Amino acid sequence: MRAALSLARRGLGSTWPNPSVGCVVVRDGSVVGRGWTQPGGRPHAETEALVRAGEAARGATVYVTLEPCSHWGRTPPCCDALVAAGVSRVVVATGDPDPRVDGRGLRRLRDAGIAVEAGLLEAEARAVIAGFVRRITLGLPLVTLKLATSLDGRIATATGESRWITGAAARRAAHGLRATHDAVLVGSGTVLADDPDLTCRVPGMARVPIARVVADTRLRTPLASRLVATAFAAPTWIATRTGQPPAALAPYLEAGVEILPIRAREGGVDLAALLGALAQRGVTRVLAEGGAGLAAGLLRAGLVDRVAWFHAPGVMGGDGLPAVRPLPLKSLSAMPRFRRVASRAVGEDWLTEFERCEDSGPPCSQES
Amino acid sequence: MRAALSLARRGLGSTWPNPSVGCVVVRDGSVVGRGWTQPGGRPHAETEALVRAGEAARGATVYVTLEPCSHWGRTPPCCDALVAAGVSRVVVATGDPDPRVDGRGLRRLRDAGIAVEAGLLEAEARAVIAGFVRRITLGLPLVTLKLATSLDGRIATATGESRWITGAAARRAAHGLRATHDAVLVGSGTVLADDPDLTCRVPGMARVPIARVVADTRLRTPLASRLVATAFAAPTWIATRTGQPPAALAPYLEAGVEILPIRAREGGVDLAALLGALAQRGVTRVLAEGGAGLAAGLLRAGLVDRVAWFHAPGVMGGDGLPAVRPLPLKSLSAMPRFRRVASRAVGEDWLTEFERCEDSGPPCSQES
Repeated sequence: MRAALSLARRGLGSTWPNPSVGCVVVRDGSVVGRGWTQPGGRPHAETEALVRAGEAARGATVYVTLEPCSHWGRTPPCCDALVAAGVSRVVVATGDPDPRVDGRGLRRLRDAGIAVEAGLLEAEARAVIAGFVRRITLGLPLVTLKLATSLDGRIATATGESRWITGAAARRAAHGLRATHDAVLVGSGTVLADDPDLTCRVPGMARVPIARVVADTRLRTPLASRLVATAFAAPTWIATRTGQPPAALAPYLEAGVEILPIRAREGGVDLAALLGALAQRGVTRVLAEGGAGLAAGLLRAGLVDRVAWFHAPGVMGGDGLPAVRPLPLKSLSAMPRFRRVASRAVGEDWLTEFERCEDSGPPCSQES
Repeated sequence: MRAALSLARRGLGSTWPNPSVGCVVVRDGSVVGRGWTQPGGRPHAETEALVRAGEAARGATVYVTLEPCSHWGRTPPCCDALVAAGVSRVVVATGDPDPRVDGRGLRRLRDAGIAVEAGLLEAEARAVIAGFVRRITLGLPLVTLKLATSLDGRIATATGESRWITGAAARRAAHGLRATHDAVLVGSGTVLADDPDLTCRVPGMARVPIARVVADTRLRTPLASRLVATAFAAPTWIATRTGQPPAALAPYLEAGVEILPIRAREGGVDLAALLGALAQRGVTRVLAEGGAGLAAGLLRAGLVDRVAWFHAPGVMGGDGLPAVRPLPLKSLSAMPRFRRVASRAVGEDWLTEFERCEDSGPPCSQES
């Protein structure tokens, strides 16, 4: 199952709207087939693995990270394929919360006389499909907030200089983060300040391009920006307040940009509504890359599920640009807190990863 | 020698003005004596270890972290004691830069027919005596800047609430840091805001009290503060600008506070001069605990040798109080950068320790 989970992680960021699944077929102690969800979400992992196993699947044990589907989508149900292949045992890490499956997959396998076990490495498997589950159950994608700051939490000097606070290794790791997300989200201020292209430049990784999304209440994204200029090559979506005059939208549409009209709230686009619109489009995992206004808005609304914080080993001082605008906090006990899940050196910088406190385990305690 | 270094570290913070040294006497493969510098700096480690070894020292090998002294101070030279004890071999980690020793110790041992080796685990040994070396060679103590902030570098909410950002384990670790320093330094703003007592409350550690030092240009430290109120129980030194009227100083002196008159510079006491005055008093290791003004002043003047940064797993937002006042930086390349030397979880918080870049190894590179 560990091998299957590892295969499943390969698909993160490229299988949306489908979850990324891994599958390993074992016969007489040998792996006879491996598969994972292919870019775009099809074929499914089980199909891939069974094709590779061929006749060797007969009587084999199948390890799959998610309950096999039981319904006809654009592909036939994987359950039927497993039955047809004559496997004798299926081990599943976690059930599929999709209401079209939700236990029916396991039942159909059992009804066909296949031995079924469920729950092996369930926590790891749920972490892999967390974005998919959030989309299915809450209508929201999983949101990872990525920040790269000095030790004292600054993203630029008082004069606006920000290249580079973190080192080359951290910037490569940040590109790797993009690769495991379906969409990258920035505020229009970041577009104006940095003109990023938000592509994922990881050597050797050719993949479905991630959607590049700008939260841009007042349509400030320049038509000459790299995001607009490359909109035909990789999806660029601009989320702006509803009711923009068609004449203002036309040049973006002509450039290949898709416009997401989002209701306004407290002077900006409603971020929950924006994320809901992304989920409706099938997005399961969003990487929010800044700037300080977007980070504050997401934190304030409780929309941040994971945090990836790169700290450079330097101190910028109190006149540097803060990474997060005022939330503002009424009291210290209201400070958004996260649970540390991983921490490692990335070149000279340090990456700490956090998750939402209520995701698992006891709630993050506030000591008195 | 590792055992001797471990013994030497026990004395950190309590042996000033002397360096903390560890000594292990080995005879026929067995440890027959161990010693480390005692509180106040005497007896020396070698004396302690030889006393414990007694007659077993004859023909033994002595591992000592610092070159044994060759001069008469308040105690007789350790070299003479080693010769008198009849040891046959002395292994030294690093030489003593004190001009009264500086190679004479090793020579005297060799002249007495003792086999002498030097340089074993030298880097580790030099780290232990770094404060002493700085005092001897530069007339300055080693300065460790300790900070405890949110992930975005804040030490209090906009309303001034700061208790507690980090957890109980981090606060205990911070007390442990005090224990390994000779003096704790804060700005008067911190005294006004927090009224700290700056004592070292580590269970089971009874030790020489650390000197508590306030950088207080305008004599703002309240007479009713805990630091002043406890000045007879533990040393309290107030460093203030020269030329304060005697009437203003008198009540502090009566309360047992010592006054350090320091020349002013750019509106505050000159921090280099203040540290120099501490070194003259024998202080080898200073823990600077804040606030934001003191941190900025020390960083600006290049006086920070080590950094201990506790990051709590929360985000406070841009209206929180910054941990470091404006330096201010002219450009990003001027940002003070440090070399990460250790990093570990402390409860829910994360402690990263840094050292000055030029201390060892290649200079911290600034990528283009």
